[in-house]
Amino acid sequence: MNQKSTITNENTVWHEPTIRRIDREKLNNHKSVILWFTGLSGSGKSTLAHAIEDTLFAKGIRTYVLDGDNVRRGLCQDLGFSDADRTENIRRVGEISRLLMDAGVLTLTAFISPFSKDRQLVRDLHNKDEFIEIYCNSSLVVCEQRDVKGLYRKARAGDIAEFTGISSPYEEPKKPEIELDTANQTVQDCVNKVVLYLEEQGVIKR
Amino acid sequence: MNQKSTITNENTVWHEPTIRRIDREKLNNHKSVILWFTGLSGSGKSTLAHAIEDTLFAKGIRTYVLDGDNVRRGLCQDLGFSDADRTENIRRVGEISRLLMDAGVLTLTAFISPFSKDRQLVRDLHNKDEFIEIYCNSSLVVCEQRDVKGLYRKARAGDIAEFTGISSPYEEPKKPEIELDTANQTVQDCVNKVVLYLEEQGVIKR
Repeated sequence: MNQKSTITNENTVWHEPTIRRIDREKLNNHKSVILWFTGLSGSGKSTLAHAIEDTLFAKGIRTYVLDGDNVRRGLCQDLGFSDADRTENIRRVGEISRLLMDAGVLTLTAFISPFSKDRQLVRDLHNKDEFIEIYCNSSLVVCEQRDVKGLYRKARAGDIAEFTGISSPYEEPKKPEIELDTANQTVQDCVNKVVLYLEEQGVIKR
Repeated sequence: MNQKSTITNENTVWHEPTIRRIDREKLNNHKSVILWFTGLSGSGKSTLAHAIEDTLFAKGIRTYVLDGDNVRRGLCQDLGFSDADRTENIRRVGEISRLLMDAGVLTLTAFISPFSKDRQLVRDLHNKDEFIEIYCNSSLVVCEQRDVKGLYRKARAGDIAEFTGISSPYEEPKKPEIELDTANQTVQDCVNKVVLYLEEQGVIKR
């Protein structure tokens, strides 16, 4: 590139990025992938995403968690919980996660993402081995018994419409890369399982 | 946090993030801010954003450029160029840049962003000193003479509707943090000016 040229010159349309994801991964010393958590409300998605982030960050890995707290209140504040809005919400999260990954960040997302076709759409945005679907498998009975936010009670009372598992379907992943039995395994066991997977896949160094 | 607890326990709603932006900035050894380039088509926004990224990345700074190439074709593929869609496009870019910043990334955006109120909306999303507006000031005459993508010619011929500067307004920034005379300064001069500003503001180390 000719840094001496003025921007008025014709040869200044060199804004094809020279810094690419591979350069960022080299600087960071790890690959950037997406860990896509899916599961019922109360199945442990956010808890686990943040616990894994804690562990990875302590290893110097660049991480970021996308969840309802930072997405639904910002980028997706115009969306509700109808099927169409859920689909658009997941599409946008997929696109943001792609940008974060491109920026070299190992991205963790924690959304119920109940529909198979939406998760497949996000998977299709990414190259093979970049999209790691993690199914937080906890039965509705357990999630509802737990009901830490009191949402199931409200949904049963009809105070929340279109609540996944009660009045809106949850479609189980058929072939998730990782399945966690979050009703019976400890947080630490789940964290260990995911970190080991990332090491085995060469995403992070041992 | 009690990593020995199972996720079924009530005390597992500890998904308040423990890793915060300040931790990421410490790991990265620089602050994360947003460099918001604004100006007419052909005024040098993308050219400069990428040239500055090259310089910063060589210093080990975590950077990312958001522009039409990676936003309009992805997250904002559902949007056109009406006033309402331009506003929504800028709102979303503002929200993504906030997420990237929160992830510790020094973010550069290159969008015409012609409306003052939209830029103000994005500015209001950020804390003071985090949003650095950079006005690429090049007259319409110069941009149109240059017309590297042939867009002005098409707009004059009526083949492109709502083209900024021709059939849609551009509202000049009143008080940008940095103004670059991109019709007369070299790319290197502009890069130096911005990098010096970041050093003086303590965003990056000298």
